[in-house]
Amino acid sequence: MALVVQKFGGTSVADTEKIRNVARKVIREREAGNDVVVVVSAMGKTTDQLLAMAYELTQNPSLRELDMLASTGEQITIALLAMALHEMGHKAVSMTGPQVGILTDNIHSKAKIVQISDQRLREQLETGHIVIVAGFQGATVDGSITTLGRGGSDTTAVALAAVLKADCCDIYTDVNGVYTCDPRLVPNARKLEAITYDEMLELATLGARVLHNRAVEFAKRYNVPLQVRSSFNDEPGTMVVKETGNMEDIIVSGVAYNRTEAQIKVYGLPDHPGVAAELFKALHDARIVVDMILQNVGHDDTNDLSFTVAREDLNAALDCAKAVAERVGAREVIVSPNIAKVSVVGAGVQSHTDVAANMFKALADKQINIQSISTSEIKISCIIAEEDVDKAVQAIHDALDLSVGSV
Amino acid sequence: MALVVQKFGGTSVADTEKIRNVARKVIREREAGNDVVVVVSAMGKTTDQLLAMAYELTQNPSLRELDMLASTGEQITIALLAMALHEMGHKAVSMTGPQVGILTDNIHSKAKIVQISDQRLREQLETGHIVIVAGFQGATVDGSITTLGRGGSDTTAVALAAVLKADCCDIYTDVNGVYTCDPRLVPNARKLEAITYDEMLELATLGARVLHNRAVEFAKRYNVPLQVRSSFNDEPGTMVVKETGNMEDIIVSGVAYNRTEAQIKVYGLPDHPGVAAELFKALHDARIVVDMILQNVGHDDTNDLSFTVAREDLNAALDCAKAVAERVGAREVIVSPNIAKVSVVGAGVQSHTDVAANMFKALADKQINIQSISTSEIKISCIIAEEDVDKAVQAIHDALDLSVGSV
Repeated sequence: MALVVQKFGGTSVADTEKIRNVARKVIREREAGNDVVVVVSAMGKTTDQLLAMAYELTQNPSLRELDMLASTGEQITIALLAMALHEMGHKAVSMTGPQVGILTDNIHSKAKIVQISDQRLREQLETGHIVIVAGFQGATVDGSITTLGRGGSDTTAVALAAVLKADCCDIYTDVNGVYTCDPRLVPNARKLEAITYDEMLELATLGARVLHNRAVEFAKRYNVPLQVRSSFNDEPGTMVVKETGNMEDIIVSGVAYNRTEAQIKVYGLPDHPGVAAELFKALHDARIVVDMILQNVGHDDTNDLSFTVAREDLNAALDCAKAVAERVGAREVIVSPNIAKVSVVGAGVQSHTDVAANMFKALADKQINIQSISTSEIKISCIIAEEDVDKAVQAIHDALDLSVGSV
Repeated sequence: MALVVQKFGGTSVADTEKIRNVARKVIREREAGNDVVVVVSAMGKTTDQLLAMAYELTQNPSLRELDMLASTGEQITIALLAMALHEMGHKAVSMTGPQVGILTDNIHSKAKIVQISDQRLREQLETGHIVIVAGFQGATVDGSITTLGRGGSDTTAVALAAVLKADCCDIYTDVNGVYTCDPRLVPNARKLEAITYDEMLELATLGARVLHNRAVEFAKRYNVPLQVRSSFNDEPGTMVVKETGNMEDIIVSGVAYNRTEAQIKVYGLPDHPGVAAELFKALHDARIVVDMILQNVGHDDTNDLSFTVAREDLNAALDCAKAVAERVGAREVIVSPNIAKVSVVGAGVQSHTDVAANMFKALADKQINIQSISTSEIKISCIIAEEDVDKAVQAIHDALDLSVGSV
């Protein structure tokens, strides 16, 4: 008998009919002879509706009280799913995060899991129950309810799978799996059978929006086999694992893009130690998350440095950059608000030099100018004009033959 | 510094504007120099909406899961009220029933409070917080969430007031206090300044619908001074206490009515011991709550016996009565489905014989036939035809001069 953790997101449980559909997927797993733990999110728009009421009362709500409020969303879903399973003749019991014993730190609204007790879960599993756990939530040592922030239900599912040493953690979502590119943008995008944690991390960061990074990091750390699959059909999804079986063959797993960032370039920074540190210390102090940092070889005793930030942080980041530029005597600060990042991700990217060449040629053939390039072991990213994203992604996908596999 | 417990029901917190109004009432109490504990119900129709989803999934929901579901309603309110108080510049913290340490038995959906720890409440009060507690809920020893059933939030408030030895427990509602009769029926009904626990219990049981009986019983047992008052104005309400100051003067506190019952009469029961016991044992076994039982002196070696039950229990009660009647050889079972009960309640009812006489004369003057009469130390109840209720209540109220005080 295997132990399977299933996770269903908000769109999968948006109404009672969809909850019945989820119950059927749970039962299928149960009737295959497995122990099942189910993690669910809040129904559809519930969280948004709760937050809207909070913001009717205050523009600056206490994070502790926001957690108290938002955590009711998942609690509603677990009770309803338990009822649906009972109605279909199965033993099931719902548990909130605090009831399971998901202990977190006290950073409300983005708490981190400190420890999970598996005792209460095991007790319920041993007495034949399907256990339904509220995602996204836990409690501090003194019993305050916390939420785990964005991607929290994915993280709950992976964490429970880790502590229970589950055989698989299935993340049910509104897509069929992980694709070589966003199918809305590239119609011939191909679903991947398997992908490594590292590739998935790059794809998630780069905007593939299927699985939250934090959950993938957790899965990687505890070696939890993940499967991303659809709530709305029974097809197998994409396995996310340590090493894919045909690892040697796969060069490129996918093309990702992101158009939610802006780029700031600082020209003519003095070429001596500590200048970059001063800039990024200032950004850190302002709690601005910086993504892609580039500094090329200098000339005339100065350097040019660029970085990208989320667009909503652009003004704050620009203030930081200008203040530091003035202090250290840099020449100029330039903003590119409407850039996009397109990336090729895959375990073979670095070792197969033709990937970079093909990517750049594909862009050139479409007359798309590359503003910056950055690479890691498993990815190549280019900054281009936002307006070119659609044709860039399609061109790269075609050039790398991803629709038929990258072998 | 006094300690005040305030309770606000569902209509008082029906939307965010009303929650702001509640916050102002809490602050007024706080700024008068008092420690304040606030108990709130779920917002307006929230509980009904949650239960509607449950019944979309199953006609027979697990009571444990219903409690898990319904308890989210109060949790939403406490978080929002805390935010409203913060926004108005006050320290406040919300706590669920389980967080407070409200320990109940494990009878889901109608749990009874077993024990309340005052430790966490005291900690928060001592650090200057207004403490907002979710009404209607608690937890079993093994951590399952329970609800207290009808009137549960009133009961939570009174129980907290008892354990904290509060100076007063103010029950805010949508009426100004306890009236000599339902003001919707009798326009000249008068608000009472004070009433005893016992009178309040009779009025509540008889249908005055202001305060739940269970909360009054709790208040009586622990001698918690209650005040019933309005959420929507600042007038003083009605005090519910052990003895009213002018107890000797008050004869009749009010006229109550109830039109949700039906009466069953069993004629010609054999006049020997054990017959009544057999009938009510059968009703008890069917879990039917029986209200007014009457048996007059017998004749011809037989007795006639009648009792009232809630109308939804009428068919089941009739089955019981017919089965027992046949077994013991009674003559006939007759049903009066459309009866009503009108009652006069007051500490002086028994000692002042004119009350009964005036009540019966008032009914006679309106040509209203009295089908049955029952009395206790502090009440006189008559069963009449349901269609006569409105004029009966007004006539009795007028005959006893209740609109100007019953002195």
